[in-house]
Amino acid sequence: MTAAPFRFELLASDGAARRGRFTAAHGTVETPAFMPVGTAGTVKAMLPEQVAETGAEIVLANTYHLMLRPGAERVARLGGLHKFMHWPRPILTDSGGYQVMSLSALRRIDEQGVAFQSHIDGSRWTLSPESSIEIQRLLGADISMAFDECTPHPAEADVAAASMRLSMRWAERSKAAFVEQPGHALFGIVQGSVYPDLRAESAARLLGIGFDGYAVGGLAVGEGQEAMFAVLDRTVKLLPSDRPRYLMGVGKPADIVGAVVRGIDMFDCVLPTRSGRTGQAFTRRGPVNIRNARHIDDPRPLDDSCPCSACRQYSRAYLHHLWRAKEMLGQILLTWHNLHYYQALMAGLRAAIAAGDVGAFAVAFAAEQDQGDIEPLGART
Amino acid sequence: MTAAPFRFELLASDGAARRGRFTAAHGTVETPAFMPVGTAGTVKAMLPEQVAETGAEIVLANTYHLMLRPGAERVARLGGLHKFMHWPRPILTDSGGYQVMSLSALRRIDEQGVAFQSHIDGSRWTLSPESSIEIQRLLGADISMAFDECTPHPAEADVAAASMRLSMRWAERSKAAFVEQPGHALFGIVQGSVYPDLRAESAARLLGIGFDGYAVGGLAVGEGQEAMFAVLDRTVKLLPSDRPRYLMGVGKPADIVGAVVRGIDMFDCVLPTRSGRTGQAFTRRGPVNIRNARHIDDPRPLDDSCPCSACRQYSRAYLHHLWRAKEMLGQILLTWHNLHYYQALMAGLRAAIAAGDVGAFAVAFAAEQDQGDIEPLGART
Repeated sequence: MTAAPFRFELLASDGAARRGRFTAAHGTVETPAFMPVGTAGTVKAMLPEQVAETGAEIVLANTYHLMLRPGAERVARLGGLHKFMHWPRPILTDSGGYQVMSLSALRRIDEQGVAFQSHIDGSRWTLSPESSIEIQRLLGADISMAFDECTPHPAEADVAAASMRLSMRWAERSKAAFVEQPGHALFGIVQGSVYPDLRAESAARLLGIGFDGYAVGGLAVGEGQEAMFAVLDRTVKLLPSDRPRYLMGVGKPADIVGAVVRGIDMFDCVLPTRSGRTGQAFTRRGPVNIRNARHIDDPRPLDDSCPCSACRQYSRAYLHHLWRAKEMLGQILLTWHNLHYYQALMAGLRAAIAAGDVGAFAVAFAAEQDQGDIEPLGART
Repeated sequence: MTAAPFRFELLASDGAARRGRFTAAHGTVETPAFMPVGTAGTVKAMLPEQVAETGAEIVLANTYHLMLRPGAERVARLGGLHKFMHWPRPILTDSGGYQVMSLSALRRIDEQGVAFQSHIDGSRWTLSPESSIEIQRLLGADISMAFDECTPHPAEADVAAASMRLSMRWAERSKAAFVEQPGHALFGIVQGSVYPDLRAESAARLLGIGFDGYAVGGLAVGEGQEAMFAVLDRTVKLLPSDRPRYLMGVGKPADIVGAVVRGIDMFDCVLPTRSGRTGQAFTRRGPVNIRNARHIDDPRPLDDSCPCSACRQYSRAYLHHLWRAKEMLGQILLTWHNLHYYQALMAGLRAAIAAGDVGAFAVAFAAEQDQGDIEPLGART
């Protein structure tokens, strides 16, 4: 643990794209960065050493899940989330707002906060800016997120405006509730749906409050890539260049490349881990469904350029076999590979920005993805 | 791969207990040895590197499962089981006889072999001494097992005799079908249920045929520890001292200690892996059920003397949390711990035999197990 303040350095720019680095209480993170999701205090199917081995320097954990089980005060008594889950590097926690909306039952929102029932056992809970920030402090997050309402999509302009303004009042209360500690940061979240004026109003409000970093929220909720990029094109330039920018819940590899080109520094998404558990691998040449019978006799690796264990040590035939036999190792290896893929993508983007050719990187990335998977082997003999 | 013949060295004895070493095509195995079970070409929930890290030098794979899926010829085309599952050390394959009886439907046994339906898809298959040995050759097993009928328990003496004699005729055919290759071994299996005269007849028949090692089969099928030890007391001394002795499907830690004291060199059992997936940990002080609520606030490791990752890096509270949250990491860590426990037990037995005090080891082992788990912490504050 360093006692230094949270800080972000901008190392290089290429158009809007940024190569940076932030230092938090538990370590340094090179940006653009992808944060694997460790919902309940574990990146599903992975040992933390395996997560680190992929190159990940920070993980995300969910306030909503951890407050319900095992409970934030319990985690605090046990020494905090880093110790609990054996992840000594930085952790970002979300505020719980998004999961309350997407997972829990019988939600009731008012100015104070949200009352809801647990999706696990129906027990009754409340969450407010103050309690969300307190829970994130108990967990020991390096980066806490302001408590907000993730505006659903689609939303009429007046609904989106009311929702955004509530989130901005909550952002102010989140900031007031946040206890400053060296190396610990609080990020605000821009809302406003697809409406440029609302996004601008939200950004201005957050800048007025003042945060250590700025997230763009309320995207990747069904609006589509084009609409998402349009929001980024107008919103990112409103954010200060000396703070990290985080696009929440994004996304597919192509979403990440497009958002990095537009100036985003941080991402999180369940896609690499969730897909790994359902048989989908991400590769340079696009997604591969390992459940497909075309792999049954294929001695080749998933991706011959990937240095991960799944690609160096196993054939597609074996991975396919694990899938058919419902063996846990299939989920482990595909999750591990996917996390490798995402981290390699981020490393490639970082190198391209530093070299000043992120545009060419994005073009080559898209061309390689469009190739599709390698040809199937000839019919078996 | 060595081109040397399969060989067994007896390094030390302590009463009936033996400290030995065998060398097979893919490496050397210190005995007494425990073989983790990799049914379908994977030790469930484990990477092969993790299995090796526990100290395991050999794993068992199941002919029955692999012949049905992915198929022995497919595995052979892909370079054999060692390459397929990325386990470069010795592999023992069972003959499939036991699983045909316990898992498949519509079995029909005759002199030729067994016809059965797959438990996976109902497809129709046959297995004979010749085809079982051929499948094990295609898989590339270092140690193949003679095809036998595992006599059910209980069995009347005449049923047990007929079953044993069929297995002995099949043992002869297995030996005839086995293709000699340097470093590859074929083991015979003593049957005869709980009847001393049948066990003696079986052992004599096998010795007459001549095998590279001798297994005791048809135990751990419900007869109880006392009856099992009684069979071992009478049977092991009938087996040649210059060949490894393998007690199939055993067992609990106390079963293994008792069988080692009686002269057994090799074991396999699904218990450490299966228990790991259902929340039971093996410790010096007996089994621990991590699902029990007593662990919810317990910052202590499962077993403070265990050097495994689960014990060094995580609290009981975290392992309990993983269980409640149905997180795969809970199964991974408990499986890994249990395999560590079993390998540490075998290492302890090997050292005790070499030191000539396996009797004291067995007494101390039982006393420590009888202590039961550490006291729960006081009620939480």
